[in-house]
Amino acid sequence: MNIILASTSTLFGGNYLEYLKAEIISLYQNIDEIIFIPFARPGGISHDGYTSKVKSFFSTLNIKVNGLHEFQDQKSGINQAKGFFTGGGNTFLLVKTLHELGLMEVLKANIETGKPYLGCSAGSNIGGINMKTTNDMPIVYPPSFECMGLVPFNVNPHYLDPNPDLKHNGETRETRIKEFLTQNETKVIGLREGNWIRKVGEKITVEGTELTRIFEHGKAPYELNPGAVLL
Amino acid sequence: MNIILASTSTLFGGNYLEYLKAEIISLYQNIDEIIFIPFARPGGISHDGYTSKVKSFFSTLNIKVNGLHEFQDQKSGINQAKGFFTGGGNTFLLVKTLHELGLMEVLKANIETGKPYLGCSAGSNIGGINMKTTNDMPIVYPPSFECMGLVPFNVNPHYLDPNPDLKHNGETRETRIKEFLTQNETKVIGLREGNWIRKVGEKITVEGTELTRIFEHGKAPYELNPGAVLL
Repeated sequence: MNIILASTSTLFGGNYLEYLKAEIISLYQNIDEIIFIPFARPGGISHDGYTSKVKSFFSTLNIKVNGLHEFQDQKSGINQAKGFFTGGGNTFLLVKTLHELGLMEVLKANIETGKPYLGCSAGSNIGGINMKTTNDMPIVYPPSFECMGLVPFNVNPHYLDPNPDLKHNGETRETRIKEFLTQNETKVIGLREGNWIRKVGEKITVEGTELTRIFEHGKAPYELNPGAVLL
Repeated sequence: MNIILASTSTLFGGNYLEYLKAEIISLYQNIDEIIFIPFARPGGISHDGYTSKVKSFFSTLNIKVNGLHEFQDQKSGINQAKGFFTGGGNTFLLVKTLHELGLMEVLKANIETGKPYLGCSAGSNIGGINMKTTNDMPIVYPPSFECMGLVPFNVNPHYLDPNPDLKHNGETRETRIKEFLTQNETKVIGLREGNWIRKVGEKITVEGTELTRIFEHGKAPYELNPGAVLL
């Protein structure tokens, strides 16, 4: 496989996908056309508008982008594609849409043949085993929380350290992930903004500028340096 | 009906249920025994431990507390109860458990006869139409997101204003609720910590020390003063 699962598309004060540009060039080597999956976006911008934003970034790499929503036959669109990118938004909406259209398995099968895949935020959640470690609000009810399992763990994008100054009783991200581990044995990769998971062949590493926080059932959370091998 | 749906059980620096004590006394007037529903708690404390904490608070009001998990026949326990309290934790776990045990409808029917109900956090979410505006992580998959609909809207407990200093790309609470409104027409009550919804008969008010933020489909969000009538 050849995939990137990124915490975010955009760093604070940065431009869309800018910080990932070198890694995206390496991901899509020799690829001149990809399919963009805009289904996570619940509003503010249409599927067409979202796809335009992506086209504009990829035009600087001479890669043509087609929105998956534009295809009459989306399964065959995916089967004929050379590579994929799923953008962020709401993971519940993305997973519901992919399951209802019968596309989750088709996408997985295509990525498993070696076609490059980039996911950001919700697009990274669906690369995990299931979406049970998303940060998103459950604004719609998906028929299942199961995802593609391109990696043998779950991802928590936008991982955020507790703010010791906050006088608020809501759970910290760490508490939420530990609650997940009371009900599940799946490992969780807490990806701070600026980090991503890179899988090439069978090798999986964490990349970027930040430490990555790992949560495992029955173990204290621990940190990995950029470049560390996950599997 | 006679209900309280509170944002939180505990204010920063305060003791458990302390800030709600006067309202709780008015809720359970002439009631000497209630059932506590501990099912939201995913870990850190057992159902017994959680129930002990509640017993200890209610002993100061001379109200006896039985944990719902202690009943062999939970439906008949609910049918014979004089009042209810559902504590916070993870809404997905709470809703899954109540649906799987067939208790959501039984609890609703009993509260609709006028038996007093107190919910905190996840316990307030289940008083709304559905749980699609919870802040919790989807650590388990409930068979449905539908809740009791004791009030004709949804609740967002622990409502939190955006932090303008945060250099983080995760969605603000307001953005999340606006995303909910792109997919649903249900009104959402953003309950800041320190506030609660009070329903007596058919009259619904917002109470507490803070303004309450209201989100409606196709309208700009607006604020209500403590004591304002919601319905």
